[in-house]
Amino acid sequence: MSEKLLGNLPHGLIFVLSAPAGTGKTTLVSMLLDEFPCVAESVSCTTRTPRPGEIPGKDYHFMDAEAFEAKIAAGDFLEYAQVFGSYYGTAGDYVQQQQEKGKHVFLVIDTQGALQLKGKLDAVFIFVTPPSLQALRERLFKRKTENLEMIEQRLSFAKHEMAQSSKYDYNIVNDNLHHAYDILRSIVIAEEHRVRKAK
Amino acid sequence: MSEKLLGNLPHGLIFVLSAPAGTGKTTLVSMLLDEFPCVAESVSCTTRTPRPGEIPGKDYHFMDAEAFEAKIAAGDFLEYAQVFGSYYGTAGDYVQQQQEKGKHVFLVIDTQGALQLKGKLDAVFIFVTPPSLQALRERLFKRKTENLEMIEQRLSFAKHEMAQSSKYDYNIVNDNLHHAYDILRSIVIAEEHRVRKAK
Repeated sequence: MSEKLLGNLPHGLIFVLSAPAGTGKTTLVSMLLDEFPCVAESVSCTTRTPRPGEIPGKDYHFMDAEAFEAKIAAGDFLEYAQVFGSYYGTAGDYVQQQQEKGKHVFLVIDTQGALQLKGKLDAVFIFVTPPSLQALRERLFKRKTENLEMIEQRLSFAKHEMAQSSKYDYNIVNDNLHHAYDILRSIVIAEEHRVRKAK
Repeated sequence: MSEKLLGNLPHGLIFVLSAPAGTGKTTLVSMLLDEFPCVAESVSCTTRTPRPGEIPGKDYHFMDAEAFEAKIAAGDFLEYAQVFGSYYGTAGDYVQQQQEKGKHVFLVIDTQGALQLKGKLDAVFIFVTPPSLQALRERLFKRKTENLEMIEQRLSFAKHEMAQSSKYDYNIVNDNLHHAYDILRSIVIAEEHRVRKAK
């Protein structure tokens, strides 16, 4: 008899979450990690420059292009993609270790990387949408981590990403953080209780 | 921009819930109806005798076998089944009306009826399991609505029903009412946010 709401599977599930920059994905995933110790987040590898405040090993594994390309050659990545001239990738070993501990692993990755995994990886695909591009523009301005040109670039990329949302299993519109979080946790709880057919 | 967590679809979904007698399904569904005005429960038709306290039109539409058979002949039922010598059935018109109002409709029916609907109806199938047959036996004794022979009959039927649980989309073990309810509401919230492919 289990007293835990979540985390009762011998082998954890993989959740792939994509969302345009500024949609609130970081906050949503942190809330999930805070509520459920059985949820882990995969830390991506990247060749981009750390933003102020970002912690190596926590936010990203920062590395140079040479090291990244060596990992590509070694087949270490579940997926990788080049976005705005930088590499981003998910190392497979961490994900597998967490799953074997019964943890659900979240991969927070862009649509390019996510769609590489569709059909290849048994995962649940979640897309988080901003209420509107206008709202997204305002959030990016408030964040003050990008200059004007970068913001316009990110908005145009966001439009491109949002066009892919119907390829995901679930769509969440983040027009209210409390509701968006309730939907995200519901997806994780529901998926743990879904009957999975033996293969 | 919607302020509602649930009930934002133009056409509601159908949820089929089965659970052996005494598993707590009535309590779980009541909690859902209390939290979400956009969830409706389909009232089944039956030819069995009302139990003390049951309200006609709320718990069941009680009718005699002749009236029930006339409805079968008229094609009024989405599904019907005979259990312990009584008919039970779900009338299609109510379900459709509620869906058209954007409400999600719960059909609380036995496995016989539920499995008739699989493949025929676009619905989400949920099975609620008691923690053990021993726990179920204790609950049925405490409920005092059946005599000893009926309890044994229900337990043997419960075993038969539990063997069907893997044919459902979701399984919930009700070993803790608070958790079981959290799982049930999560399934409904998640399903409303699932991307449904156009047919």
